[in-house]
Amino acid sequence: MKKNRLEAFTDGVFAIVITLLILDLRLPNVTYGELPNALRALAPAIGVYVLSFVLIGMYWVFHHHSMTLVHDVDGVLLWLNIVFLLFISFMPFPTMMMGRYPNQTLPVVVYGCNLLMANLNGFIMLLYLRRNPALTSSYFTDRLYRAQVRVYVIVNGLYMLFIALAFVSPVAAVIAFAAMGLFLVVRSAVNMGIGRCVIGGVDSVPAAFPLP
Amino acid sequence: MKKNRLEAFTDGVFAIVITLLILDLRLPNVTYGELPNALRALAPAIGVYVLSFVLIGMYWVFHHHSMTLVHDVDGVLLWLNIVFLLFISFMPFPTMMMGRYPNQTLPVVVYGCNLLMANLNGFIMLLYLRRNPALTSSYFTDRLYRAQVRVYVIVNGLYMLFIALAFVSPVAAVIAFAAMGLFLVVRSAVNMGIGRCVIGGVDSVPAAFPLP
Amino acid sequence: MKKNRLEAFTDGVFAIVITLLILDLRLPNVTYGELPNALRALAPAIGVYVLSFVLIGMYWVFHHHSMTLVHDVDGVLLWLNIVFLLFISFMPFPTMMMGRYPNQTLPVVVYGCNLLMANLNGFIMLLYLRRNPALTSSYFTDRLYRAQVRVYVIVNGLYMLFIALAFVSPVAAVIAFAAMGLFLVVRSAVNMGIGRCVIGGVDSVPAAFPLP
Amino acid sequence: MKKNRLEAFTDGVFAIVITLLILDLRLPNVTYGELPNALRALAPAIGVYVLSFVLIGMYWVFHHHSMTLVHDVDGVLLWLNIVFLLFISFMPFPTMMMGRYPNQTLPVVVYGCNLLMANLNGFIMLLYLRRNPALTSSYFTDRLYRAQVRVYVIVNGLYMLFIALAFVSPVAAVIAFAAMGLFLVVRSAVNMGIGRCVIGGVDSVPAAFPLP
Repeated sequence: MKKNRLEAFTDGVFAIVITLLILDLRLPNVTYGELPNALRALAPAIGVYVLSFVLIGMYWVFHHHSMTLVHDVDGVLLWLNIVFLLFISFMPFPTMMMGRYPNQTLPVVVYGCNLLMANLNGFIMLLYLRRNPALTSSYFTDRLYRAQVRVYVIVNGLYMLFIALAFVSPVAAVIAFAAMGLFLVVRSAVNMGIGRCVIGGVDSVPAAFPLP
Repeated sequence: MKKNRLEAFTDGVFAIVITLLILDLRLPNVTYGELPNALRALAPAIGVYVLSFVLIGMYWVFHHHSMTLVHDVDGVLLWLNIVFLLFISFMPFPTMMMGRYPNQTLPVVVYGCNLLMANLNGFIMLLYLRRNPALTSSYFTDRLYRAQVRVYVIVNGLYMLFIALAFVSPVAAVIAFAAMGLFLVVRSAVNMGIGRCVIGGVDSVPAAFPLP
Repeated sequence: MKKNRLEAFTDGVFAIVITLLILDLRLPNVTYGELPNALRALAPAIGVYVLSFVLIGMYWVFHHHSMTLVHDVDGVLLWLNIVFLLFISFMPFPTMMMGRYPNQTLPVVVYGCNLLMANLNGFIMLLYLRRNPALTSSYFTDRLYRAQVRVYVIVNGLYMLFIALAFVSPVAAVIAFAAMGLFLVVRSAVNMGIGRCVIGGVDSVPAAFPLP
Repeated sequence: MKKNRLEAFTDGVFAIVITLLILDLRLPNVTYGELPNALRALAPAIGVYVLSFVLIGMYWVFHHHSMTLVHDVDGVLLWLNIVFLLFISFMPFPTMMMGRYPNQTLPVVVYGCNLLMANLNGFIMLLYLRRNPALTSSYFTDRLYRAQVRVYVIVNGLYMLFIALAFVSPVAAVIAFAAMGLFLVVRSAVNMGIGRCVIGGVDSVPAAFPLP
């Protein structure tokens, strides 16, 4: 399969998931007098909506950069990518749960596990590329591979910590996920370049690499 | 990131948001005898549906033209663009509220603030491009920058006025937003060219520039 | 605006509307014992789902062929196209109404008027192209223009007849719309070519032209 | 119609259907104390969600490979493709039914018939290509045609068996569909290439061909 065809399909799924999130922001049937209170009650759901929007946007950016490591897509990579999209497409479900049951443990655990599964899938793709150099581009160097493994270990270790934290304080866990998201956004922006684009741009110099 | 990849993703999100709007036009479960009254009661929601459809279409047109100012996308522009899409993707929510509570202040205020936030985001992108000439195309001239700033100040000043107006007469505020939308549509059509395309077309001469 | 950018956005909206239709096929919350009856009660809605799917598919095909008449998109054509997409995006609403109130006049009338409005919009685009030859491609000949006008007059005349028919027999009107749809599908297939592609294909010879 | 335009539209519909599936995974309005039980009750629906996601992903992969057999799209192929998309777009409906009524016969039968109809449509496209060599690419050899016919007969024969099985044990039938799906996924991955891409890739050698 041509790489760009897979990318276009992946972009489509990402664009749809990120936009569908708003459909789960449901206002109950209240009178206008009760609207301010209903909106206030929706505040956690709106916050989680923004969090998921940014995280899905981040996965899209990371997927895009990861694909620069790939020269050719074989049958295994293709299906690993479809399973990755399964975890991304599932995100509106725990997002809705977290919005509906704020300050509760279970929704945060499901949310965190969903992120972990998506990352695990990405990690398997990385290992698979490592074992099949015929599929990789010249950007896939030893140094980059080791850096990526380190990032995966750190990020997912922290995610597991946040999931554990949800059993003590769900709110603190959500804040931790949000802070981590914000950090990864800033890191991805810095890695991609500030003031000029160092990855994938016109004068691309992929010195660093921003996979999660 | 290649500019066209960001544009394709952005186009996808716009196409989805603009089409999803119809899902919030819900007919209550009435008997056929009550259908004419139910449809009449939906009339404000249908009006707001049309307004949001045209406004989102306008943002799509404006985004497209703005991208001709950009030569290269760095990490900051990428994330500013994702946040811009967040505000666009949020629009079905206040649209639904305005349709459900016609002639009320709060929905119009939320709707107007959503538009303001999207514009503010666009304004920050403009300022960022101004400070990073390495990212801009040759279309980004001093004259164009100043014209754009002026347009942003006027449009958003008026939007703030309309939001204030919503506290006096919500209906008048909605009409003002609609009139403004219609004016911006006509202006964008004129700027883009009547009878022949002067921007982005085959024989493109971007003398004027139609950002909001 | 580059023609292909507008086409990509239009394709996106069409793909979304045609796929969203299924969301309005709602099964009531019945026990398994009542499921066969609930499915039987949904039969008209499933029939209308198929009708709208085919009609939207047809508009997509026609839009595609119409764009071969266009050489350049100016500000007016761009906005006429967005309004055209408004009427296409609206179709799930009357589709849902027709499925929910089978054998009733009002939903068929709204459905037919929606189709009429979309066609009227297409007709205005045709007249606008006629008056602005700078925007047309070499396929836009006098003969083709007159053929297209004839087709518009006949099709929309029939649609108005079907709407009138809905006041006598809504079922007969729906059957008439379906028969007309089937005829236009077959006609578009024949015009496009059987066994080899005569329009837009590799060895394209647009002798005839299949706009509605 | 240019082949790539039809492919882009088809990709869009596939991306939307596969992502929309999550919208039918609805959590009832329960208190937080009842949430664990509500999630346990949703387990079959989540399982069916995953099954449909993988099957739709598989149809997308198969459609992509099938298109390498096509050199040119005529009016009949175009409309056969739109009808194919109708069956794909319908899949969320039986998916939702199977999730809502687990361990029941009727939803599995409707689900299986939907898959059969999609395959039958693909089979008709194959026969049509066979009779119209002007539309086929050089990949469409006699040997490949016979192999494809054999695969269609075997797969659809098994699907009919599974549908019959649903009258004895609905759960066994769902497991059979899932096992078949898993087998087809593995087979498609092997056919496409492990470690290097043999179809549609950079150094494409379509020795085998993975249509269903």
